[in-house]
Order: sequence, then structure tokens, then C-alpha cells
Amino acid sequence: MKHIDLFAIGLLTAAQSAFAADWQALPSTAPAPRDNPTTAAKVALGSKLFLDPRLSATGTVSCNSCHNVMAGGDDNRPVAMGILGKTGGRSAPTVWNSAFNATQFWDGRAATLEDQAKGPVVADVEMGMHSLDEVVARLAQIPGYQAEFKQVFGGAQPITADNMAKAIAAYERTLITPNSPYDRYVKGDKKALTAQQQRGMQKFAEVGCVACHSGPAFNGQNGASAGAFMKFPAMADSDYVAKYKLTADPGHYNVSKREDDRNTWKVPTLRNVALTAPYFHNGAVPSLDEAVRVMAKTQLGADLNEADSKDIVAFLDALTGEFPTQKMPRLPATAGKSFAF
Amino acid sequence: MKHIDLFAIGLLTAAQSAFAADWQALPSTAPAPRDNPTTAAKVALGSKLFLDPRLSATGTVSCNSCHNVMAGGDDNRPVAMGILGKTGGRSAPTVWNSAFNATQFWDGRAATLEDQAKGPVVADVEMGMHSLDEVVARLAQIPGYQAEFKQVFGGAQPITADNMAKAIAAYERTLITPNSPYDRYVKGDKKALTAQQQRGMQKFAEVGCVACHSGPAFNGQNGASAGAFMKFPAMADSDYVAKYKLTADPGHYNVSKREDDRNTWKVPTLRNVALTAPYFHNGAVPSLDEAVRVMAKTQLGADLNEADSKDIVAFLDALTGEFPTQKMPRLPATAGKSFAF
Repeated sequence: MKHIDLFAIGLLTAAQSAFAADWQALPSTAPAPRDNPTTAAKVALGSKLFLDPRLSATGTVSCNSCHNVMAGGDDNRPVAMGILGKTGGRSAPTVWNSAFNATQFWDGRAATLEDQAKGPVVADVEMGMHSLDEVVARLAQIPGYQAEFKQVFGGAQPITADNMAKAIAAYERTLITPNSPYDRYVKGDKKALTAQQQRGMQKFAEVGCVACHSGPAFNGQNGASAGAFMKFPAMADSDYVAKYKLTADPGHYNVSKREDDRNTWKVPTLRNVALTAPYFHNGAVPSLDEAVRVMAKTQLGADLNEADSKDIVAFLDALTGEFPTQKMPRLPATAGKSFAF
Repeated sequence: MKHIDLFAIGLLTAAQSAFAADWQALPSTAPAPRDNPTTAAKVALGSKLFLDPRLSATGTVSCNSCHNVMAGGDDNRPVAMGILGKTGGRSAPTVWNSAFNATQFWDGRAATLEDQAKGPVVADVEMGMHSLDEVVARLAQIPGYQAEFKQVFGGAQPITADNMAKAIAAYERTLITPNSPYDRYVKGDKKALTAQQQRGMQKFAEVGCVACHSGPAFNGQNGASAGAFMKFPAMADSDYVAKYKLTADPGHYNVSKREDDRNTWKVPTLRNVALTAPYFHNGAVPSLDEAVRVMAKTQLGADLNEADSKDIVAFLDALTGEFPTQKMPRLPATAGKSFAF
């Protein structure tokens, strides 16, 4: 994976400060991979699978348990909690606008939403199924899924782990929150942002946040940082590093095993960031204003004053978009027979 | 509480066998108590509270976790699972059509939906909050709930445990599944039931199931059994009793402490029973056909043959109604600050 070091960040920051940032509105649709076109039927199936707790060993945890689409697409917990109260070391990232991520998971260990969807179902501390085969076997016991997979994917054995992942990914590609105050501002409605939010927007660029949080989803998906893993903390000489244990998790190093990648991370979207406290890969920082101070200090060496951090938080509030109305899915029945939960 | 003994059941069964059962369709609305009229705004608030996992100690369990409105209103588990994988001894009853129950919980320890709604949030093995005050304090931290409780209930301190329970109960009163094949049949559409289902309906009456499972929701809410707690197992000399540990839980005795009430239970609705496996208060019986055999034997002393039990199961399938389309609620945000989960 491409990796931008601290020096490069410094250069980019200077450049971004000197020129106007490249502000972009969020697209209202996300492109789908060629082998998984988005269709209404597939999205409908995906929404059921996403919300179905029968995909977990105990029948109590669905994708939605940690990535709550009724909320900010996460669980508002420091670290995600799977079956039987088990926890790992990372905070659930939002599923909203995840279609615009160049890689998935905090450490980028999945390249696509399709790959990502096959992870948590078989993760011991998440949904806890023993294997994808076990997931497939369970889905196959549900007559409604038999019919619906057949309709969407065809073929003799339509229920497969890949097709399950495709349906979930297709649903996730519809989870987009356009028309935030920021988007309306960028499109020309100059009253969409308050004066404070406009100051915050300017400071967000000046301080250098845009060096990584660029592009329509503020997740570095254009320019030099596209798809890159960024060092966090970039400057380890801050009290925040010990306070919030920011170096405890090696991040993308776990995937690449390259020393250069130690403590590097996917740049997370800032869309709807006001809804997804607590913050960072380990969920250690409880509030958005503290998160802004930590980032300024550890990434850019900046000590924000009270007014600046409040302005930036006000701007980040303006990244909360419009959540599409969703119909609550009906999950196909177990048909008079229970699973062995 | 009224209690009907075995002898009375016997008499009632004979009477029901001799005459046509009093078949009733499910009403499309449920009456609300005078102090909690159902309004659209209250129902909307209630649906959010019902689906909000922040009402639990870990932020992972909502009312919907065990009473899944996207499914049969339960969790398809033998016994419910609350926070941290904790379990009690009872299976989650369906929330669908619970508005038509004369009492709530398996053992009838709550008289109303309003009373019921205050139980699980503070039950150690369910949502695990320490007190209703703690629940209220948490809701009060969420600006969107502040505004919405104010709009619905008014007053200086609109967020109270009673108002929370009222909103949840109002939402639950909308969870009604009319127009099952059975309902259409009873209303005159003689083609709504198959020949097998019609045979099953007749046998359901003849065998004596209607003695307890009477009324529009098949939960004994009319005639002699209205609001009564019924002995289960009524006849303890069956192999099923030991096999499924049917006498281990004293049921309503725990509430009344009267020896007469040992192993008596609320008569559960049979509406949508095909969707709510496994069966009985302890969820010990995995399939509906076995549940039918157990009930016939332990309650009515009848050994059903294969054809009879299949016919009755076919009839019970015809009690699956139409689930109203629901909008997925948007949960009000935690607003840039996390709870201490």
C-alpha cells in the first residue's frame, strides 16, 4: 500500500494552507463494482441480511448491532461489542458513506465492501460463527432466503458467502447522506453554513486537516492521499499519546507486517462525525472537541485555542447529512423450527 | 387472580367440542387506556425508544433485541439473551398483538403494556440498567429526546420513566397483524383456508385447544378463561413433562405465592405462532408440530395421530397475519459526546 510519511504530510499541509482547499459535495450515488451491480432486489435482500441477528452464533448480533443505520452507522461505544459481551480493541466505524472508502476496516484489511462483509460474521468477538459455510448452511434453512437469493442471483446454489456479501455490499452502497449544510454551501447556498461554521471551514483548511481529510467524504479519497494509510499519531511527543493509548495498536502494520506501516490507519470519513462519538480507532476520546484538539496536536503540531476548536467542531457539525428514509425490512421466518442457538 | 382448575377446563372442553367454537377475527386497532391515548407523535417516539440500544447498560440491547418487530416479535431463541450474554429461564414472548393480552409477561406480573415496559430495562439479565432513574438520566442527555418528549407529553420534566413506558406501550399497540388467512376465512372468504387448514381448525376446536386459546388473539381473552392463569402442564403424567422440564418453573406462583398458582401461566397468543419457534415459557420445544403434540397430551390428555397434528399445524400457519409496513426510525443523536458504556 502507498504510504505517505510525515515529511510529505508537512509539504501537503503547507500547500493546502496556501491555496483554497478543493471542497467537494457528496455524490448521491456510489459506483458499484462491475461484478456486483446495484439492483433494487439485491438491496432489499441486503438490508434483510444486514439487520438479521440469525447471522450470529447466538442469534443476537446483526451487522446493524455495531453499525446502526438508525443512528450514525455505529454503536456509540468505545469498542464494538459482539456476542456474549465480547469486545475487541477497535471502535466500530460508520457504515454510512462507507461506499466511498478506498479500503475497509480501520486497518484496511479488506479492499471492498464485499470483502469486508465476510469478516465480522466469523470473527470470534463479533458475530462468532465458526465458518462462512456455517453461515451459508443457516441461511439455507430459511425458506424466504432460499427464494430471495434465487431471485436475485439465480443459479443452482444461490446461497453462497459471496452472494451474501454482495447483497450486503449493495445495500451499504445505498447508505449515503447527501445535502448536509456543507454540501448545500459548496453547491452555492451561502446561507447554509453559519458564520462560525464558515470560520471553522477556513480553519479546517488552514490548520491542515484537509491534507488527509480531503475529497467528498473527507476520507482522503483524492489527490496524494488517495488510498494511503496515514500515521496516527504522527508526532509521538504529545501528552495525548499516553493519555489515549494512541500507539498501542499497530494498525495497518498488522496487515502488511512492514515496519513503515506501524501505527498507520485508513483515513476515516468525517461525514456525520458529530453522531459517532467516541472517537478514533480505539474509541478512547469521548467528545468531538477533544478529538479535534488531539488531531491538531498529534498530526499537525498545532495547539488549537478554544475559539478555533469550537469553530472547527461547528464546521464538522455541518457535515451531518440527510439520512434517507428506509423501510423496515421483514426478515424471512424460521418457519416453525428454531435454530440451535 | 382468577384461576380455572383442571376440572373446569374439562367441562369447558366438552362444551366447546359439542358446539361450534366462537371464531373471531383480529381487530385492526387496539384500545388504549384512558390515561395513555394513542397518538401518531407518541407512537413515533415509542418506536425510537423501542429500537434504541442506549436504553441498556452496554448500549447493545434494545427492546427490539428480544422482541424483534422485523421478525415474529421475538428472538427465535430458547431463552432471551440480554447484555453480556446473560440469560434467564424464559423465552421472549412476541410483542406482536401483545396489546390484546389481559396480562403481560409469561407469569402475568405486569397488568399493562405500560407496566411491562419498565421491567426489562432494569432487569439484570436483560438490559441491565441499575434503575429507572438511570434510564431517565441517560435519555435526558440526548437532545432529540428532550425535544420529542416535550412535544408529546409537555410539562417541565417530560422525560420520566412513566412517559417512556407510555410511549413504548403506544407504539406496541400499533403492532397488530390482521388479515391472516384465518381472519379472511372467518370474515367469509371460504377459499382463504386450504382443506387441510379447515380440517385443522375443526380439530383445534374438537380436541379442546379453544378452551384456553379462545378469542380473536387465541389467548383466552374472552369467556371463562379471560385473564385467567392456566395450569401447564395440567396432566403431569406425561413423558413430555420430564423431557422438556415443564414443571421446573413455578410460573404465576412466583407472583402470587399461592400454591394454587404453581405452574400456571398466562395463555399466550397463537397469532403468528409459526414464526416464533422455539416454544413454551422455557423455549424447550424446538418445533411447532412437537409443541402441538405436547399441548394435546399435557393439557387435554390427547395423543394426536400424525394426520391430526399436521392438520392443526396447518391451521396454526393460517394465523400468520399481515405485518404493517414500518418506517425505520432515526434515533436522536448523542451529539458529539458518548455515554460511559
